[in-house]
Amino acid sequence: MVTLLTDFGTADGYAGAMKGAVLSVCPEARLVDISHELPAGDLRSGALALMAAAPYFPEATVHLAVIDPGVGTSRAPLLVEACGQYFVGPNNGLLSLATPRPRTIRVLDRSEFFALRPSPTFHGRDIFAPVAGHLAAGTPAAELGSELATMEQLELPEPRVGPGSVEGQVLVADRFGNLLTNIDREHLGQNSHQARVEIGGRTIAGLVSTYGEAREGELVALFSSSGVLEIAVSSGSAREIFGPDPPEGMPVVVRFDRPGQV
Amino acid sequence: MVTLLTDFGTADGYAGAMKGAVLSVCPEARLVDISHELPAGDLRSGALALMAAAPYFPEATVHLAVIDPGVGTSRAPLLVEACGQYFVGPNNGLLSLATPRPRTIRVLDRSEFFALRPSPTFHGRDIFAPVAGHLAAGTPAAELGSELATMEQLELPEPRVGPGSVEGQVLVADRFGNLLTNIDREHLGQNSHQARVEIGGRTIAGLVSTYGEAREGELVALFSSSGVLEIAVSSGSAREIFGPDPPEGMPVVVRFDRPGQV
Amino acid sequence: MVTLLTDFGTADGYAGAMKGAVLSVCPEARLVDISHELPAGDLRSGALALMAAAPYFPEATVHLAVIDPGVGTSRAPLLVEACGQYFVGPNNGLLSLATPRPRTIRVLDRSEFFALRPSPTFHGRDIFAPVAGHLAAGTPAAELGSELATMEQLELPEPRVGPGSVEGQVLVADRFGNLLTNIDREHLGQNSHQARVEIGGRTIAGLVSTYGEAREGELVALFSSSGVLEIAVSSGSAREIFGPDPPEGMPVVVRFDRPGQV
Repeated sequence: MVTLLTDFGTADGYAGAMKGAVLSVCPEARLVDISHELPAGDLRSGALALMAAAPYFPEATVHLAVIDPGVGTSRAPLLVEACGQYFVGPNNGLLSLATPRPRTIRVLDRSEFFALRPSPTFHGRDIFAPVAGHLAAGTPAAELGSELATMEQLELPEPRVGPGSVEGQVLVADRFGNLLTNIDREHLGQNSHQARVEIGGRTIAGLVSTYGEAREGELVALFSSSGVLEIAVSSGSAREIFGPDPPEGMPVVVRFDRPGQV
Repeated sequence: MVTLLTDFGTADGYAGAMKGAVLSVCPEARLVDISHELPAGDLRSGALALMAAAPYFPEATVHLAVIDPGVGTSRAPLLVEACGQYFVGPNNGLLSLATPRPRTIRVLDRSEFFALRPSPTFHGRDIFAPVAGHLAAGTPAAELGSELATMEQLELPEPRVGPGSVEGQVLVADRFGNLLTNIDREHLGQNSHQARVEIGGRTIAGLVSTYGEAREGELVALFSSSGVLEIAVSSGSAREIFGPDPPEGMPVVVRFDRPGQV
Repeated sequence: MVTLLTDFGTADGYAGAMKGAVLSVCPEARLVDISHELPAGDLRSGALALMAAAPYFPEATVHLAVIDPGVGTSRAPLLVEACGQYFVGPNNGLLSLATPRPRTIRVLDRSEFFALRPSPTFHGRDIFAPVAGHLAAGTPAAELGSELATMEQLELPEPRVGPGSVEGQVLVADRFGNLLTNIDREHLGQNSHQARVEIGGRTIAGLVSTYGEAREGELVALFSSSGVLEIAVSSGSAREIFGPDPPEGMPVVVRFDRPGQV
């Protein structure tokens, strides 16, 4: 099983070519699209999407992830083993959120597993896809590259946890206009039921457990399906409420009714 | 075989997580995307798309359809058997157009077939996908939930059939800007060859059988590939001709040259 | 293995219906989406995408490609054998770039392989998909239609190769805003390292081999992953630099430092 995540779109045939390149090496591979619609060059969105999806796949799944603005430069092509799965893609942070404690990190330095003359602008098709195909066909990871000690990490901003408050920010908005933050359950501890959430000049009293608990159009805070604090509008879009600017980086502060208890 | 229809988009990784959740239960399942691009929360568009696609799939196909603005509230999760196929999704009307005469309707009340602690905001991943996986793996429907007598129906407006005319409306515009109405072949009976179609202040004389029969740019009426009256522009978009407002609900009247003969 | 390329989008259920129609004939077929997001009716973009993707698929792959503004008119439905693969779609040029030297061209004139009463507006679902299914299920091509001598060719503009210069044009912009031209490696011969590229009033000195060789925001020329001259902006969009008009047809001139040497 090979999943695909790229910023290629589909209309140019690039994603199709990459699929063909996997299947030419391993005709039995079962391809599963995660997405080809990541914003062009947006490593953070890609890394978050991969982190959201990968854990739900079976053991030994091969995740082929290519958002690669530095294609053809010195950034290395990687194969990472983590969580019982394989991740193939460029060493630019894209794979890092989905592979928090990698078992091994390998640089793909065995060109006999690549296409014959790899294009310097399309390693997705000519390097990453053939390697994913070989993995799916049963070639051991150890034959595909040499071990590295470390890989690029995507740095997400850390929230500041103080007495009585947690100060974080919006990481990304999803398709529904829900704002996902860098504050998670652990940051709030036992205090989540008495939290007040401040964002964009508004204050939200308390957390709900799902959208439909609120009145239509009401701004709410809740834990997302991946366990982070989420700002949403019931039957609407929180993103639209806060104006035209991209919401990434908007400050979000959580305060507790009895300060000092965090 | 498991098809997927959602309003998740793909870029957030939600659709990918749902696919992983099916495959973790049933690694042999073959996934087929119908769409993840339904407008957010748009039950009517989703129900129409499912109705357009499902009948063409083989017997015993599992259709996993999730447009679920009420996720986590009291609306029940369903498994419907109809037309020799299975439909899994929320009880909010989404499944109703594709399952006109259901053989059985079941509420998914056996949590041993769900993920361990289902998120209140993502039943697609934690309830519907695992159940679809179990179905695909051969678990009998009867083990997955208790029978219900009825389910939510999506109410589509009915056309008014009078002497010499049928008054209907536009239900939806497709990607080509073709307007699909709630008037079908049966409503027009033997009179379709002599019909005049009125829409948005224009009158179309007679029906064509395909777009290319008309001059480029000409407004035409014809029967769609699903058998309903369709308003189209040859090599163009009918939606654009009628201005910026969404065309849903626009009145469409069909008159016959010899009134009184319907 | 059956790939799919259409301009249907996915949200209307048309692409889903077409997939179902393949699988109803051949339940074992493995479907691979190339794209459903081609611009509506855009044969050139579709033909270029098919040409970009098809060569990377294994032998005997069936490519089902449907951009079909003339559906239901006299344009014939085709099955083309080329490069060891099969191509099924309308005779309107869509298949022509991917099948430069076809082994056989057949018109699909055996209606026993179609759906029972094909809709005049949806041959994708009712003619092309069932035929692709029969091919995937092992029906010999010769049983599916009679041979034709020729098929419609999509005419791409040819560059003008003169002493010291090559004058071409932009064919298409990709999702990244890269401009792909009709000038390829052979047109430039041994002179590519000393080329100056003129486009939209700007001159680019020399070719790079990949985007990351240039400074961020710099306009560059290079050979694309399909071997044609490409105009790009490092970490940006060349399409945006040249204003709001569609870039298709923009003149591109390549000159050499020592004229007369081409």
